[in-house]
Amino acid sequence: MAKLIGNAVVGQSGGPTCAINATLCGVIKGCLACDSIETVYGMRNGVEGLEKGDIISLNHYFLNSPKTLNLLATTPAAALGSCRKKISTDEQIEALYKVFEQNNIRYFFYIGGNDSMDAVAKLTDYANRNADKDLWEMRFIGIPKTIDNDLVLTDHTPGFGSAAKYIAVTMQEIMRDCAVYTTKAVTIVEIMGRDAGWLTASAALCKEISGTGPKLIYLPECIFDQEKFLQDVKDILENDEEPYLVIAVSEGIKNADKEYVASAAMSGAEDSFGHKYLAGTGKYLENLIRDRIGCKVRSVELNILQRCASHLASKTDIEESIRVGEAAVRHAAAGETGKMAAFRRVKSAGNYTVDVFMEDVTEIANKIKKMPKNFINETGTYVTEKCIDYMLPLIKGQLEIPYDDDGLPVHFEF
Amino acid sequence: MAKLIGNAVVGQSGGPTCAINATLCGVIKGCLACDSIETVYGMRNGVEGLEKGDIISLNHYFLNSPKTLNLLATTPAAALGSCRKKISTDEQIEALYKVFEQNNIRYFFYIGGNDSMDAVAKLTDYANRNADKDLWEMRFIGIPKTIDNDLVLTDHTPGFGSAAKYIAVTMQEIMRDCAVYTTKAVTIVEIMGRDAGWLTASAALCKEISGTGPKLIYLPECIFDQEKFLQDVKDILENDEEPYLVIAVSEGIKNADKEYVASAAMSGAEDSFGHKYLAGTGKYLENLIRDRIGCKVRSVELNILQRCASHLASKTDIEESIRVGEAAVRHAAAGETGKMAAFRRVKSAGNYTVDVFMEDVTEIANKIKKMPKNFINETGTYVTEKCIDYMLPLIKGQLEIPYDDDGLPVHFEF
Repeated sequence: MAKLIGNAVVGQSGGPTCAINATLCGVIKGCLACDSIETVYGMRNGVEGLEKGDIISLNHYFLNSPKTLNLLATTPAAALGSCRKKISTDEQIEALYKVFEQNNIRYFFYIGGNDSMDAVAKLTDYANRNADKDLWEMRFIGIPKTIDNDLVLTDHTPGFGSAAKYIAVTMQEIMRDCAVYTTKAVTIVEIMGRDAGWLTASAALCKEISGTGPKLIYLPECIFDQEKFLQDVKDILENDEEPYLVIAVSEGIKNADKEYVASAAMSGAEDSFGHKYLAGTGKYLENLIRDRIGCKVRSVELNILQRCASHLASKTDIEESIRVGEAAVRHAAAGETGKMAAFRRVKSAGNYTVDVFMEDVTEIANKIKKMPKNFINETGTYVTEKCIDYMLPLIKGQLEIPYDDDGLPVHFEF
Repeated sequence: MAKLIGNAVVGQSGGPTCAINATLCGVIKGCLACDSIETVYGMRNGVEGLEKGDIISLNHYFLNSPKTLNLLATTPAAALGSCRKKISTDEQIEALYKVFEQNNIRYFFYIGGNDSMDAVAKLTDYANRNADKDLWEMRFIGIPKTIDNDLVLTDHTPGFGSAAKYIAVTMQEIMRDCAVYTTKAVTIVEIMGRDAGWLTASAALCKEISGTGPKLIYLPECIFDQEKFLQDVKDILENDEEPYLVIAVSEGIKNADKEYVASAAMSGAEDSFGHKYLAGTGKYLENLIRDRIGCKVRSVELNILQRCASHLASKTDIEESIRVGEAAVRHAAAGETGKMAAFRRVKSAGNYTVDVFMEDVTEIANKIKKMPKNFINETGTYVTEKCIDYMLPLIKGQLEIPYDDDGLPVHFEF
């Protein structure tokens, strides 16, 4: 493969995570170290900004500034801004090519989830279709990020480990909070993940840390049966020594008709002003238990804190996220295009290490990796040891977060 | 005052905080260092356990174990367990006196909020009423804790600083999460505090740290007018440069009829199974904005994480919480009874220090300290500089949290 010399552009897309800036940091490091790449530009708000030529020189901010680059790596959300824009037409792609040519851009790195991999696939497909037309030569690489961990062909996704650690540590603190009273009480913790249960499963890690954790875990991979749920809860309340029961539940649990549990039950619900009412899964189940069992009950929705609480980021996750960004640049410089950087686990448990390798992006876009059957117990109410062994290495390590003189975290901002 | 030699008992009561175990640590330190006190016992679940004689020797766990005592100080919630039991009859008090006599207990320390101070007041009143009857001599001391910061006669309450720091840091991370998109969007963050707005006000500290923060703050001290709220939101969405608007709102905001905003609107609401439906303030306002303004909107309820996220505890708060516990023991040994240990601020801003002094517990029980008028702006939608100056010193300092080899926090457990 001939050496391709020019500039690079990197963008962030989709929902923020704690690790997407770490991957950006890795791409910048990789570009600054790469003798084929002169300037690395950042797209403002992903392809939404790129098509308007809204790019900034990242060399300007980070060349010879390792401290600033470290600060970027521990800042939550997407420092360059994000977008939900999809690439669907050749006209869109042609507009992007104009920006590439105008700025001598030869390398395109896109950090994101499923939709972002689809964008990389579409760009690659366009390049392949027009290869005979003296098209501006480009290399397109996707780099995964999603707290949901639901991309195929990679052992796990950057961002998942930090979100899982946040959930494990927070569950541990919630368990302490629940343990103080002697009256029977249920606490429902609603966790993100509409299609796959990875994040909700990570609530079980709490027990690995502290010996106590949620006794029931409901995942989108299993059909949610409301009456069975009520019976599960009653059984534990009646037979358990501890008076408190903590339940982890995915926002995405669905009934046998494949409807989200809360939206199925709440359709048509209105407040007293006649406003339509939408409720979360946890809140719905809280009201259900209050109504049908009558015990003390509350629900906690971890909400966006799962994806932005960088002060609790997993060291393993942040380091891997930087590494995957650097590797993406190396592989692109070596000639790869239309690929996504992915993780392959070399050894697990005790001796955990991962390799970064490249997968065809068309094999990844628009697919969802659900939890395998052997990660979920037979009753569909908890995870297996196999699942714990898979997740535990990913949350490990206490990251050094930069704090100001007052002991408050410092973030990077352009 | 004659020296009173005997044992001590300490209990925790009411809702958990990050600092109530730090105060327990202070009481234990104080007792171990006090030559009038032989053994310090812990009540299991406050007076609920005490009246059954359910007490444990804390000397057994902590004598010559400074490391274990430090671990206790950074563990969230109430290690001894808590209760909501009130003291209302002389029979209850007589039962407690039996436990005091049986265990040679002369000192009673109760860490809690308003109800706990009421318990100390009742015990003191009983002792005073029966002083001529050769009653077993006791000294009763209350030590404040509440994240709500709503106890009178003390500059602030142990536990508030850590909760305020959690809110400030979390808001900072939420702001980053909100800043990534270019579409107009509202994020409502619901914060604890049914009667006083202290915790919600602390959301403004985020701006002090990072230069950006919520633009509107709604407190229970101001009447909540739904139409004015909608107009405030519309004005900012129309005129502001940034497309995202973050709003901090207290769970306790009330309308002109003094009803909680959400419960007033949701009364009678049912889901499609006919279950009665209770909603939170944030969720209610989210649905209101979606319905009346129609922009992208979401709500986040910080929920119990505000009071149990000890991994983010304020160093100032934890150190002060230990100190107030130690001081309570010293004052009791010196002869005080019927008192609550309280903080007086010596100097503020830059040079913040506090003294611990003793206040009559009857002056504190059953009263609520609301935010003063000069802490809230004229439109009732934000806090003043005076309020910021008051709160900022309380959240300062990064505590050394014990982490295990995997980088996960370690908690103390009996």
